[in-house]
Amino acid sequence: MAVNFQALAEEFTKFYYAQFDSDRSQLGNLYRDHSMLTFETSQLQGAKNIIEKLVSLPFQKVAHRISTLDAQPSSPEMGSVLVMVTGELLVDEEQNPQRYSQVFHLIPEGGSYYVFNDIFRLNYS
Amino acid sequence: MAVNFQALAEEFTKFYYAQFDSDRSQLGNLYRDHSMLTFETSQLQGAKNIIEKLVSLPFQKVAHRISTLDAQPSSPEMGSVLVMVTGELLVDEEQNPQRYSQVFHLIPEGGSYYVFNDIFRLNYS
Repeated sequence: MAVNFQALAEEFTKFYYAQFDSDRSQLGNLYRDHSMLTFETSQLQGAKNIIEKLVSLPFQKVAHRISTLDAQPSSPEMGSVLVMVTGELLVDEEQNPQRYSQVFHLIPEGGSYYVFNDIFRLNYS
Repeated sequence: MAVNFQALAEEFTKFYYAQFDSDRSQLGNLYRDHSMLTFETSQLQGAKNIIEKLVSLPFQKVAHRISTLDAQPSSPEMGSVLVMVTGELLVDEEQNPQRYSQVFHLIPEGGSYYVFNDIFRLNYS
């Protein structure tokens, strides 16, 4: 296929984290009613519930830094993309970043992509 | 849907890591010709290439310990499952485990599942 999955994943995550870190209430367009988010031990379904959860997270300032980003096509025919990110999260006035792992499953729709699956975990040591 | 995705993912990963840690040359049945493995910066396709890569890894003894395991259905209709694992890897005589993150995308086939996507990354700090 002609799609460059790695470049697409890099473009998506760059946009996603920039939007998350500046105003995460505006991420709703990236999810659909059947989209799922696992955030630590919480499980949410649907754009509205997912955004409510993200907005409710107990920090004001947040910055994501990507350490590794890997992408693969997630189906032989439909152009969907699986992305795994490992990175660091810096919140509020904390000096020490927290390491995290996150998976996005992106589904093509009308020339763009939406998030069908989103799984986020902090890496405790 | 009636499938318990979390239980299925736990059963799969338990089997996968037990087989990996005892004899990883026998994992070939879990992959197909169109399966993909990203292992750190290496990208492989096909059961044969994937197993060659896994067997070539430079350790004799290996043990995986799961820290977190999350699962979601990866499509509205076909019963496929997305799994994200964070865990610790202990190799040979090393005393300090290495943290890792891994994604499996499992596709149903004949009453069982095979691995279509497999992405593995050590978490460097």
